[in-house]
Amino acid sequence: MCGIFAYCTYLTEKDRKEICDILCTGLQRLEYRGYDSAGIGIDGDTEKDVILFKQVGKVAALRKLITESKVNFGKTFINQVSIAHTRWATHGAPSPINCHPLRSDPTNEFTVIHNGIVTNNNELRLVLQKKGYKFESETDTEVVAVLFKYIWDSQRGTRLDFTTLVKIVVKELEGSFAFVFKSIHFPNEVVTARRGSPLLIGVKTEKKLKIDFVDVEIAGPDVEKGAGLLAPGSSSLGSNFLVPQPAGMTRTQSRAFMSEEGVPQPIEFFIASDASAVVEHTKRVLYLEDDDIAHIIEGELHIHRLRREEGKSSVRAIETLELELAEIMKGKFDHFMQKEIYEQPESVVNTMRGRVNFDTHKITLGGLKAYLPIIRRCRRIVFSACGTSYHSCIATRAIFEELTEIPVSVELASDFLDRKTPIFRDDVCVFVSQSGETADTILAMRYCLERGALCVGVVNTVGSTISRESHCGIHINAGPEIGVASTKAYTSQYIALIMFAIQMSEDRISLTERRKQIIDGLHELPAQISQVLHGDKALQQLAKTVLANSRSLLIMGRGFQYATCLEGALKIKEISYTHSEGILAGELKHGPLALIDGDLPVILVMTRDSLYPKVQSALAQVTARKGQPIIICNEDDLSISKEYRTIRVPQTVDCLQGILNIIPLQLLSYHLAILNGFDVDFPRNLAKSVTTE
Amino acid sequence: MCGIFAYCTYLTEKDRKEICDILCTGLQRLEYRGYDSAGIGIDGDTEKDVILFKQVGKVAALRKLITESKVNFGKTFINQVSIAHTRWATHGAPSPINCHPLRSDPTNEFTVIHNGIVTNNNELRLVLQKKGYKFESETDTEVVAVLFKYIWDSQRGTRLDFTTLVKIVVKELEGSFAFVFKSIHFPNEVVTARRGSPLLIGVKTEKKLKIDFVDVEIAGPDVEKGAGLLAPGSSSLGSNFLVPQPAGMTRTQSRAFMSEEGVPQPIEFFIASDASAVVEHTKRVLYLEDDDIAHIIEGELHIHRLRREEGKSSVRAIETLELELAEIMKGKFDHFMQKEIYEQPESVVNTMRGRVNFDTHKITLGGLKAYLPIIRRCRRIVFSACGTSYHSCIATRAIFEELTEIPVSVELASDFLDRKTPIFRDDVCVFVSQSGETADTILAMRYCLERGALCVGVVNTVGSTISRESHCGIHINAGPEIGVASTKAYTSQYIALIMFAIQMSEDRISLTERRKQIIDGLHELPAQISQVLHGDKALQQLAKTVLANSRSLLIMGRGFQYATCLEGALKIKEISYTHSEGILAGELKHGPLALIDGDLPVILVMTRDSLYPKVQSALAQVTARKGQPIIICNEDDLSISKEYRTIRVPQTVDCLQGILNIIPLQLLSYHLAILNGFDVDFPRNLAKSVTTE
Repeated sequence: MCGIFAYCTYLTEKDRKEICDILCTGLQRLEYRGYDSAGIGIDGDTEKDVILFKQVGKVAALRKLITESKVNFGKTFINQVSIAHTRWATHGAPSPINCHPLRSDPTNEFTVIHNGIVTNNNELRLVLQKKGYKFESETDTEVVAVLFKYIWDSQRGTRLDFTTLVKIVVKELEGSFAFVFKSIHFPNEVVTARRGSPLLIGVKTEKKLKIDFVDVEIAGPDVEKGAGLLAPGSSSLGSNFLVPQPAGMTRTQSRAFMSEEGVPQPIEFFIASDASAVVEHTKRVLYLEDDDIAHIIEGELHIHRLRREEGKSSVRAIETLELELAEIMKGKFDHFMQKEIYEQPESVVNTMRGRVNFDTHKITLGGLKAYLPIIRRCRRIVFSACGTSYHSCIATRAIFEELTEIPVSVELASDFLDRKTPIFRDDVCVFVSQSGETADTILAMRYCLERGALCVGVVNTVGSTISRESHCGIHINAGPEIGVASTKAYTSQYIALIMFAIQMSEDRISLTERRKQIIDGLHELPAQISQVLHGDKALQQLAKTVLANSRSLLIMGRGFQYATCLEGALKIKEISYTHSEGILAGELKHGPLALIDGDLPVILVMTRDSLYPKVQSALAQVTARKGQPIIICNEDDLSISKEYRTIRVPQTVDCLQGILNIIPLQLLSYHLAILNGFDVDFPRNLAKSVTTE
Repeated sequence: MCGIFAYCTYLTEKDRKEICDILCTGLQRLEYRGYDSAGIGIDGDTEKDVILFKQVGKVAALRKLITESKVNFGKTFINQVSIAHTRWATHGAPSPINCHPLRSDPTNEFTVIHNGIVTNNNELRLVLQKKGYKFESETDTEVVAVLFKYIWDSQRGTRLDFTTLVKIVVKELEGSFAFVFKSIHFPNEVVTARRGSPLLIGVKTEKKLKIDFVDVEIAGPDVEKGAGLLAPGSSSLGSNFLVPQPAGMTRTQSRAFMSEEGVPQPIEFFIASDASAVVEHTKRVLYLEDDDIAHIIEGELHIHRLRREEGKSSVRAIETLELELAEIMKGKFDHFMQKEIYEQPESVVNTMRGRVNFDTHKITLGGLKAYLPIIRRCRRIVFSACGTSYHSCIATRAIFEELTEIPVSVELASDFLDRKTPIFRDDVCVFVSQSGETADTILAMRYCLERGALCVGVVNTVGSTISRESHCGIHINAGPEIGVASTKAYTSQYIALIMFAIQMSEDRISLTERRKQIIDGLHELPAQISQVLHGDKALQQLAKTVLANSRSLLIMGRGFQYATCLEGALKIKEISYTHSEGILAGELKHGPLALIDGDLPVILVMTRDSLYPKVQSALAQVTARKGQPIIICNEDDLSISKEYRTIRVPQTVDCLQGILNIIPLQLLSYHLAILNGFDVDFPRNLAKSVTTE
């Protein structure tokens, strides 16, 4: 949540209007990460001046505010640094004052944008308030800006450079963050730092970039944490605050982005939370790692480490994005979510592409291959994920158990961490996350890494933290997902996990037929998904006539369809704000049945599998209580009485049926949200890619 | 669900009014098992006549119907058999025609009462319909009655005895059941059979009963399943239906209930689903086991087995109930549920009595002792349970993990079975059920027994199926729980599991302090529960002013309090019919936060433990979206702003806090139900002790 965007030019002439346009467009691409307010900070008319614009609401409102302001849009800059932020409120309600960029003081000496949460912000605020500093917002981020000023003020004689200053500040902070810092004391310089939240830097040059990586600088003094800034009775600590002497610091790195002739060349940098904000400008990007501090000055990019450390990778590769701008545009659809639902016949093919051989019935997952023997020998498989990704694990748990006969447990990442679950060296831990940046899932992965378990990532975003830090994994290749409510990522995660389960069992002869059956099922899937999508009109009608005015909704099923119920209910919660709940049909009699009457809408997932008779029994129980369920069933199932409303889907293998069954629920949730007049791509209170705990 | 009661007298004069009274009172004691309709079947004025009374609604309505009827209440019987049933509808809506007893035909040749589900009833019905038999109800049970008549009709020449007839019928049935059969062809005889559903027989004699057990008869022909009754094209199968020749059958058993002098003595038998219906008549009872068929004839009780088998226990002990009638009466309270909530300061003491030594900080669980070394060596602990019992497992999962460092998984019993979860010989499987008769939990236990895992039962009801069939276990000793919504059983299960976890870790020195801390916490608990109960008035007020008109409610928390949220939400669902949902606070950002606005009521469980800062962060997120949560917090927690509504509870050890935190939610659900005018002890659609899958 929260989108960060910054734009830095060197020897490239841009007028203020262009700069503001680039910032607002960048923010709009990141809007799915948060959209309750937005703001920018740009260079003023003198070097000692920063102009801030802040507005509650979506980026369009900010753009309007800027356009209607009286600044001189014609003013041009050869070099400049500007920062922009779209917010998802965690500390402090959405308001202009809580909007980023936040500043150290009314003269904007230091301005900062931030994605994440500084968990020790209350303590820092108290210390700084004791020292006489004033705060204007309720945010955790403002503390960081003020801390900058405090350290700057208290070290005024030593002329710290920008990077050192950042190091000192960052070492005081707990929590997770990606920051971009700007200061009137360091014009045309920008520093970014990350821990836990994603950050990448796009590089655009006129000539082709000659280099493929940037050295990490390990020179420079190692800044100690200001011993005692937060210690009890710390009001006098300005004096014992340790500050390195920056004089004598050397830049060991060659001038990375100089032209062949050795003269500085025009260059533009784009700092962003993810690639979608950068791809229309450049495809050459560099992903920062945790505790990296990047400093851009005079057209050069320097990467420092927060701490001296040995054995760590000392270069950051410049990678080429495979993302196309069209992929992050809505095209002919009204909403990203709708587009993504309709992409599923293709996205599932992309997930399987090059991995499934439908003739030989063989699966090859390149990213797992080297580790398969270890994975097969494990004593337990532990899945950790959040939200929709968690549901994809629930959906495939039974097939893992069936094909591998290894105990499988599925954990909500936050609960997994809260409980300090015992993890052993012979466990295989699987982490599923669309963005690969979900904070709880990353923390769960690091917890397991520390305990020596083999960690497998299943992510959509190439280059994300989970894909980098796990031992091995699967990219689901669903293409960028922009809609906050995850749809195509779910079906692709589902298929990726099914392929994983099949590959684990490939040396078991007794399961050959079962594997063959599933792989044949996978082959039919794209056409069957298209067929389900053809029922969209009828679903729209159903949403309108039956469900639109409900405040509550239950979705029930069991076995493989339990996950469908949970995921369907989550979709409806997320975008139509209807209190829907997924219920295991087997638990009906242990409580939820009390809710059933003639009014409460119920959806029953009742496609044919071995549990069909038990679901029939649930149907009998619901109708005995005058419930009038909508039944999701197979298209050729004639045993269902005509008096019921049905949603018909093609039949496939039991363990794949959930992929077809979820699609009507995705579409229903979409139509319900539209009918209620809600913004599907930007559900209230939510943001994609939850990078805070 | 469904309550069975039957009354059989021998040489004991009773008039019809007394008999009807005994039947209705018996049903009322069983009413918590189902109460949507009730019925009785009594002897008519001739031996070939049976009178049925059936009424929709609770037993009181049936009693009224009987009283107002024109039958001759003065007619007396020396010997008689009467049957009675209170229903919880599964197949067919509540209506007089679907009410039990069900009959074979309009002349009531065979009448039957049934608890459970016959899963192959549709197939049987089709076969019987083809043979020309007519059905009047939608129930699965009627099929059984008609099947009796079909077999009787087709074997008219052979003069089958009642037991053999029952054996033939029962062998055709799939599913779970407890039956009582009555027939005009066998006056003054009654046969009962069980598989899966509980059944016990109380015995009342004037003189002290001399015997302590009843032999099981293994003589008699072994009835084969009627090969082909359900086979395809089975319309001609009447002929190849295998029927044993009953001639020559011997009763091997001595006349169990004769007096010393060898003359038959007056005797009364009470057949019931559980002891509460019997205790006011007699404390001497005999529990039937699965596949037992009991036949009462001429004051004698004969127990047969459905199949010949070797190595099975061949006696059924006659046990003495420790239940007192007062325990199953409401006393000064308006409802059983209220009484049971208020009993918790004592019931938790009863759970700990004789097991916790607060001076030496030692726990001794007699029922586990012999198996402890095996349990400690296990590779995994798997809990299976349903509903509230499942929540008690969730609540204590983390402490098991912490104290034992063994992987723990918690399964919903129905899902566990649906998934055919891999279970191994070195697993320890724990089954938690208040009644010890929960069908899914029993099936899960048998699944694990077959796979050689060690099975541990945690039940309230002594003599229940789980307590008999598990290897070892813990009786929670909470006393009878009558209210359908479980309250004191939850807190006692919770404590029983905590004691289990402590005992498992008792050989670990590093955990001595932690164990001591928890045991000290247990010591304080009863007084702290009383203190929470003192806040009842304020909770009643809160229910009235804030929550009474809500249709939806979210309860949030994390860590040890996640279970509190789930259980609190279940209570509110069950008895106040409000759609409440327990939400893991860590998942808030992954969807549920979209529901939050100024209107939706939210309860946040925020007592102090190591996760307190994270729950604070959830509070910040909720209030940033204008949510106005009610906060359950510790009584001395001053950090919570005065603007919030709070529910204050004393602080205890983190892993015990959930016991104190659930009580306000139990009380809230109770008051919400009362405010909405609902019958707390008989929530619609629900029944206690879910003995069907």
